[in-house]
Amino acid sequence: MPPKRLIAMVTDFGLNDHFVAVMKAVMININPEAAILDITHNIARHDVFDAGLKLYQSFRHFPSKTIFLCVVDPQVGTSRRILTCSDGEYLYIAPDNGLLSFIYKDRPGIEVYNVTYTHYFLENPSCTFHGRDMFAPLAAHMSKGLYPAETGEIITDYKKIMIPDPSKDSNDILCGVILGFDIFGNAVTNIDNEAAGDDFGVKILEYIIQKPSSSYDEGSEKALNIIKGSSGFLELFVKNGNSRDDFGIKRGMKIFLKLR
Amino acid sequence: MPPKRLIAMVTDFGLNDHFVAVMKAVMININPEAAILDITHNIARHDVFDAGLKLYQSFRHFPSKTIFLCVVDPQVGTSRRILTCSDGEYLYIAPDNGLLSFIYKDRPGIEVYNVTYTHYFLENPSCTFHGRDMFAPLAAHMSKGLYPAETGEIITDYKKIMIPDPSKDSNDILCGVILGFDIFGNAVTNIDNEAAGDDFGVKILEYIIQKPSSSYDEGSEKALNIIKGSSGFLELFVKNGNSRDDFGIKRGMKIFLKLR
Amino acid sequence: MPPKRLIAMVTDFGLNDHFVAVMKAVMININPEAAILDITHNIARHDVFDAGLKLYQSFRHFPSKTIFLCVVDPQVGTSRRILTCSDGEYLYIAPDNGLLSFIYKDRPGIEVYNVTYTHYFLENPSCTFHGRDMFAPLAAHMSKGLYPAETGEIITDYKKIMIPDPSKDSNDILCGVILGFDIFGNAVTNIDNEAAGDDFGVKILEYIIQKPSSSYDEGSEKALNIIKGSSGFLELFVKNGNSRDDFGIKRGMKIFLKLR
Repeated sequence: MPPKRLIAMVTDFGLNDHFVAVMKAVMININPEAAILDITHNIARHDVFDAGLKLYQSFRHFPSKTIFLCVVDPQVGTSRRILTCSDGEYLYIAPDNGLLSFIYKDRPGIEVYNVTYTHYFLENPSCTFHGRDMFAPLAAHMSKGLYPAETGEIITDYKKIMIPDPSKDSNDILCGVILGFDIFGNAVTNIDNEAAGDDFGVKILEYIIQKPSSSYDEGSEKALNIIKGSSGFLELFVKNGNSRDDFGIKRGMKIFLKLR
Repeated sequence: MPPKRLIAMVTDFGLNDHFVAVMKAVMININPEAAILDITHNIARHDVFDAGLKLYQSFRHFPSKTIFLCVVDPQVGTSRRILTCSDGEYLYIAPDNGLLSFIYKDRPGIEVYNVTYTHYFLENPSCTFHGRDMFAPLAAHMSKGLYPAETGEIITDYKKIMIPDPSKDSNDILCGVILGFDIFGNAVTNIDNEAAGDDFGVKILEYIIQKPSSSYDEGSEKALNIIKGSSGFLELFVKNGNSRDDFGIKRGMKIFLKLR
Repeated sequence: MPPKRLIAMVTDFGLNDHFVAVMKAVMININPEAAILDITHNIARHDVFDAGLKLYQSFRHFPSKTIFLCVVDPQVGTSRRILTCSDGEYLYIAPDNGLLSFIYKDRPGIEVYNVTYTHYFLENPSCTFHGRDMFAPLAAHMSKGLYPAETGEIITDYKKIMIPDPSKDSNDILCGVILGFDIFGNAVTNIDNEAAGDDFGVKILEYIIQKPSSSYDEGSEKALNIIKGSSGFLELFVKNGNSRDDFGIKRGMKIFLKLR
């Protein structure tokens, strides 16, 4: 028996309404054996970038053949395209709004298809809930073996959101940015743990952090701290606090790292 | 192998406590093969009407034989009745407080039973958690083949909440009402998409909407908009906003539609 | 076929991030047949005591052989120990921070192991996400048959949080405490329903409750009420209200019960 293709969902639909359940029901109707796992449905409304980040922080831990079903789709009902993708290991379904940008960057050989074969969609699709009428049926059929190449035409002009790389200045200062936050207010950067080495200091806004912590517990409650994060990137944290609420850290802010 | 009977849950128990998990554990104890799906557990406390609405917006997408296990039950521990129902396609379990009113209306041939055979309940049921002690065991046994008719006596005097129909006045104005909201603050009405046609205007409070939008994206950020919703009913929305918070729309408000 | 070992999770990771999903993905990678159930992921950040209470209020309803995977772990990345336990019926995994104290008390014969065999951990574990790198793999292997005794050395000096017992004074007044709250603001005490009998009065702060209610519906909206709770302990409640927000009830407060 071949291993099941898991369907893993990222949406901004929340858990208060029927939306997520109906998508699952549609999938189970098409594939009663579908195995569906929630990554999160609590992406902030329309926050395409953060959906991409959360997907990026999780995807490599999933079994190969997992289908990532991503619906954060402010342009639902317009002519924006629906994409299916394969990187040889995983499959992806998302609107063409840049949600998959982290994946495109990590997986340069990825094949991206513009879904033009509407055969798999539900009949009489609504203009407000393509998650139910288009995305979910596609995912369910893909969990039964449908290939992205069978859903439409390969394209290369899909929309990408620029994911910044850290840059190094003439004084060997590495300049990175804040990519996002977790629920505890820890701020993930784009600076690779490996690039930072074991001895470094950091500056963000007017705050200077002299050295990395080796655990959250070791950090300070009254100051920003830095640690090698579990997603492979440096993270700012405040022990028992919140870097965003307590120190005004924001997505896109620059952070400067000095190796020693 | 006959298809599994899915158990789909609607409750106001939230996700912070052990309540939902314990109901699932009880069901798994009785039927280790039970397939359980959450519709939502975040119904506002005691909001029987909204639980019914969310159920109504989702039920027809589920596989036939699905058992809808609905526990929003302010009268738990009193003599209010527990009901099991069959409409020939789906099965339902709910307290007799009107939660199933949308279903009764949509499925006039539904058979409703007052659960009097307590054999399937857990021993020594509590007076505060019938979800665990009565509803969950019933659902689990029904997922193994128990019929509603085996749980009690058929009744016709079950409690119904009046679900208003739109009415037409002498000027061909259709008068509907707001039924409820989704997490984005979109307001679902009781006016059927089909009844509205393709060209119409709407008035609610002092706001006039000249014509329907064809997508959320097409709507205005500073005004109420109207669109054919995914549940089959017209919906008010504010692009990137919230009709309830931004414009004071409330459940039960009248909305007037003029066909053109 | 032996019954599946269910994995039931209690964490403070919330549902907004990728954390819970990644733990599940890791478990599915190790055991594609793993059956995973969420108790709750919404424990207040670092609230080890409340995680223990929620576990205690649910565990006995689960099928035997269930593995309780509990990660509320403020000391992640420090030298705090990771524990695996067996009480002959259930298995447990948790950090050595007292989270399992209610279980230790309820199951005096429990065997507790300090996990020293790191063979089952993911390679290159992070210092901030042992849930993914250590706890989840352990749980998955245990769901495939690994015994706690195979994970490390038996210990008896594990950390316990004191769970108070009610005490009786010379006037036959039983003095208990508030252990915690559910999402509705009902306050669970440590006074056993059985010990209270059927006729009793209660005092907490300046409030006197003359007799127990037999349902939430029977209680008062403007006052504290007491009822035999579904976890086996007396509970304070406010009909359609919240004992914490409306009356200032707090965890650890004393409550006095007079039998009649």
